[in-house]
Amino acid sequence: MTENISAEQAQREADLVETVVASFQNTPDARLRVVMESLTRHLHAFVRDVRLTESEWNEAIAFLTAAGAITDERRQEFILLSDVLGLSMQTVAVNNVAYGNATEATVFGPFFTQDAPLIENGGDLSGGAPGQPCWVEGSVSDTSGAPIAGARIEVWEADEDGLYDVQYADGRVAARAHLFSGDDGSFRFWGLTPTPYPIPDDGPVGRLLAATGRSPYRASHLHFMVTAPGSRTLVTHIFVSGDELLERDSVFGVKESLVVDFVEQSADTPTPDGRELTEPWTRTRFDIVLAPEA
Amino acid sequence: MTENISAEQAQREADLVETVVASFQNTPDARLRVVMESLTRHLHAFVRDVRLTESEWNEAIAFLTAAGAITDERRQEFILLSDVLGLSMQTVAVNNVAYGNATEATVFGPFFTQDAPLIENGGDLSGGAPGQPCWVEGSVSDTSGAPIAGARIEVWEADEDGLYDVQYADGRVAARAHLFSGDDGSFRFWGLTPTPYPIPDDGPVGRLLAATGRSPYRASHLHFMVTAPGSRTLVTHIFVSGDELLERDSVFGVKESLVVDFVEQSADTPTPDGRELTEPWTRTRFDIVLAPEA
Repeated sequence: MTENISAEQAQREADLVETVVASFQNTPDARLRVVMESLTRHLHAFVRDVRLTESEWNEAIAFLTAAGAITDERRQEFILLSDVLGLSMQTVAVNNVAYGNATEATVFGPFFTQDAPLIENGGDLSGGAPGQPCWVEGSVSDTSGAPIAGARIEVWEADEDGLYDVQYADGRVAARAHLFSGDDGSFRFWGLTPTPYPIPDDGPVGRLLAATGRSPYRASHLHFMVTAPGSRTLVTHIFVSGDELLERDSVFGVKESLVVDFVEQSADTPTPDGRELTEPWTRTRFDIVLAPEA
Repeated sequence: MTENISAEQAQREADLVETVVASFQNTPDARLRVVMESLTRHLHAFVRDVRLTESEWNEAIAFLTAAGAITDERRQEFILLSDVLGLSMQTVAVNNVAYGNATEATVFGPFFTQDAPLIENGGDLSGGAPGQPCWVEGSVSDTSGAPIAGARIEVWEADEDGLYDVQYADGRVAARAHLFSGDDGSFRFWGLTPTPYPIPDDGPVGRLLAATGRSPYRASHLHFMVTAPGSRTLVTHIFVSGDELLERDSVFGVKESLVVDFVEQSADTPTPDGRELTEPWTRTRFDIVLAPEA
């Protein structure tokens, strides 16, 4: 909207931007200087483009203040803010550049823990968490198609109530594990069919979502982190095809290439490993391709 | 730096921006939609331009978290952040567009109070605050040069130790007052010669200034807020010509048109109102031109 202002006014505003940019010229760290100069230019462009009013500036200060007030060791409103503005996902995109047919990355999220139990290939990670059983199988390979044996595969997910174990009151570990791919790069495990859940929405970020007509829900997903020597670490999810939330995931984590079929199975369908089930289950396949280490 | 990435990578990043922008399409308030869409575009452009690393993203989250933690009813680190990035000043610029020869606005700052005492035209606002006496005189007129009688002139400033009265422990009121211009638009008062002071720099904003080689000091200044029926309210300062901080005011409040001479006077120079002084003093002139109300 800056085209509606006088040349003198535009010059005053542009001069101010240059003055602020120049204030960083003595920054000892060259990278910090680049970051602060760019941040300055983009934030000033925002203020100028929307002709930010003084009451809107006050609202922005109040929003950040409220985000600070609700943030503590268990709640991180600034990460949520970054998430719902797609900035977390853009940072992931920038740091995991497209490489051939390598599997796409997505957001890490706040629910990973370091010490998830080891299960054998073919084991069960549910740990008693409630949810529909889901058989997951796939392979790990490099971009030439060569299998990667012994890749470490971390998997974590919410239970059918939309809760991760770290959100349980009793501190038990469930619905997370790590396993290793076999000699042929293959892996398989029993987990839970993913279900949707909302991000914490009782703070300023939740109010922003409500004010903008957006849902706090995340599309159903299962988290993976895959590491192997010589390969770029992959942090990603798989999503459930047909999930109505795919188009409006609150943190923009969905990539079309990460949406897979979770095929419904009746209780009497024979399971891949002979396990006896008395309830319906699902099965899915996820073939993982790792880019080489940068 | 986005020119160094592949077309596919650039497309992924650009698609994400459009997805986030589209998420605001159901915002009931049209203005909020415009603001959020623009904010999204500019912040994503920043992340893409600098190729923000994941560790830098973590630092940004930690910075905002620390700013939230230090902010309370007496300390506002988010306003300081806006100030040192020049965003407060840019917001002032956008909302006080150039109008003929109207006096330029600058930042309001956090030290104004509503109930400053009334002094007569020619009175003394120092209220016992320590500092060198300063005679200030000038006029209030409209942009055609016609005097504005009865304009309300609020003046506030720091003492010679760089402290405003609200920073005193004992709650007394000093170095602030309001007065009214006379029938010919003129005004005059005794105040204090302005001195420089640092913005609060023991928090994350102070650490940012240190890391970027910037000073936390504000150039010496005297605050004015001038209101008159039919005129745009003017919030501004006058600055001291020759102050070495003019070129590096920490909040970018300095405008060349607001820099005036504070002329040193010896103790035995007769004062304009016959007041007897035993110490050197200064005098300055500030002619104020108000734009018409929008």
